Amino acid sequence: MDALTRIEQALTAAVTAAAAGCPPGLAAAVRHAVFPGGARIRPRLCLSVALACGDDRPSLTDAAAAAIELLHCASLVHDDLPCFDDAAFRRGKPSVHRAFGERLAVLGGDALIVLAFETLTHGAAVAPDRLPTLLLTVARSVGMPSGIVAGQAWECESSVELTEYHRAKTGALFAAATAAGAAAAGADPALWGELGARLGEAYQVADDIRDAAADPAELGKPVGRDFALDRRSAAREFGIAGAVQRLERLLAEAVDSIPPCPGGAALRASIMAESQRFLPKGLVRAAA
Amino acid sequence: MDALTRIEQALTAAVTAAAAGCPPGLAAAVRHAVFPGGARIRPRLCLSVALACGDDRPSLTDAAAAAIELLHCASLVHDDLPCFDDAAFRRGKPSVHRAFGERLAVLGGDALIVLAFETLTHGAAVAPDRLPTLLLTVARSVGMPSGIVAGQAWECESSVELTEYHRAKTGALFAAATAAGAAAAGADPALWGELGARLGEAYQVADDIRDAAADPAELGKPVGRDFALDRRSAAREFGIAGAVQRLERLLAEAVDSIPPCPGGAALRASIMAESQRFLPKGLVRAAA
Repeated sequence: MDALTRIEQALTAAVTAAAAGCPPGLAAAVRHAVFPGGARIRPRLCLSVALACGDDRPSLTDAAAAAIELLHCASLVHDDLPCFDDAAFRRGKPSVHRAFGERLAVLGGDALIVLAFETLTHGAAVAPDRLPTLLLTVARSVGMPSGIVAGQAWECESSVELTEYHRAKTGALFAAATAAGAAAAGADPALWGELGARLGEAYQVADDIRDAAADPAELGKPVGRDFALDRRSAAREFGIAGAVQRLERLLAEAVDSIPPCPGGAALRASIMAESQRFLPKGLVRAAA
Repeated sequence: MDALTRIEQALTAAVTAAAAGCPPGLAAAVRHAVFPGGARIRPRLCLSVALACGDDRPSLTDAAAAAIELLHCASLVHDDLPCFDDAAFRRGKPSVHRAFGERLAVLGGDALIVLAFETLTHGAAVAPDRLPTLLLTVARSVGMPSGIVAGQAWECESSVELTEYHRAKTGALFAAATAAGAAAAGADPALWGELGARLGEAYQVADDIRDAAADPAELGKPVGRDFALDRRSAAREFGIAGAVQRLERLLAEAVDSIPPCPGGAALRASIMAESQRFLPKGLVRAAA
């Protein structure tokens, strides 16, 4: 079974079980938040690492990947709320609060956070000794002091260091994706966090670049929400060319950090292939 | 050490550890949400049940009690948001969104949910075999399909059965408090959920009665938010006297449900004493 099929099946099983007997509006809001998905980049990364480490408990791997994605979806639902980005659309359809109202968006995000931990616990029935490490790995990436919730909260502070902000806002869940993939397969998660953290930072820098120059033809004439909302951004800080250089350095560091493992070569190749999707090719060439 | 001291120490340890290195605003919002507390009725119930069951892993009991209270605090912060109750005050001081803004109220609630599961996992280091049951017990009481988040979501539906609504909105976390107290002490949580569920329903009925007749002298002339917001309420459904009868029946059922255990008699006595605080005595006498 390919990675995406495993992920979609695990997500469908988790959401379907949770929705039975649930208030219909809440169930619909949660389904809307999770399906259809985006690129599922974090859970695919989780699966890739687990496979590189032997993937000896596939159902636990699937649960870990699903938990990571559920938490990502929760963060999108809450970040889209009127008090944050007030985003009208997400993944090509109305955001959850536009489709279901603000109350079900708040509750839907809360329910998704809880569902993530529940999914992980159910999945660990096949290897209960791996549960504590997995849970702490995932919880740290979401909560205080340096998970994605903290990353979002840095936006409420008057001063923040860019690397710390990116590390928490995006890097944390990426780091959890790789560490949880390793932990699900019985490997040491501490050796695998850096890979995810670097990829997460790279992803965020790519996002900043896209925000500043959505159309490569507009290079050097940055427009976008980071500027409009006066948000910290690698593109604002270093310029487009500097940001692209930073991105390439982060990707190289990511690949270099992969510890020895049975499937290391395949993982390296898949990450390099995947990372080509971070940026429009035109942009990379133009900046080179 | 008395119960309240154990609870406050466990909460302080959890919040202090999480706040180190956290964005200052988020740390302050979370502290504001947790300290000073209300009656801490749920974690005290959790401790009472653990003690009745032998309390052989006190640090795990403390973690379970703290997790229950952190989740309760999270639900208060999110329920107070402008899109729900828009409450200006909570526990005698400004609500979190009034004091710190809506963004930190959303994020603070999210962080508290995560911290609850993290606290539970740390606490279970002394008895890892009890972690899966504890986690599922607690998660079910908060999430879909019938935890407090679902209870709140029933308010967004056009039709809802009162018992189901109360069971999810308040009963769920009370049921988790007793079940988690048992599970923390190595007892069977399935035998202990009913006690908490009945007490939670009783507590909610008492709350409905207080809302409808805050001053006993006004009995029979109900005023309050449930009426103003057209919310389901036992006082609206059955009248004040009927609601008081229902409350007394629920308390009797609660005490009757206590399974055989080393400290059963003491637990029974403490619950009867505690439940006297549910209602102003004048009201009970007037309705009798």
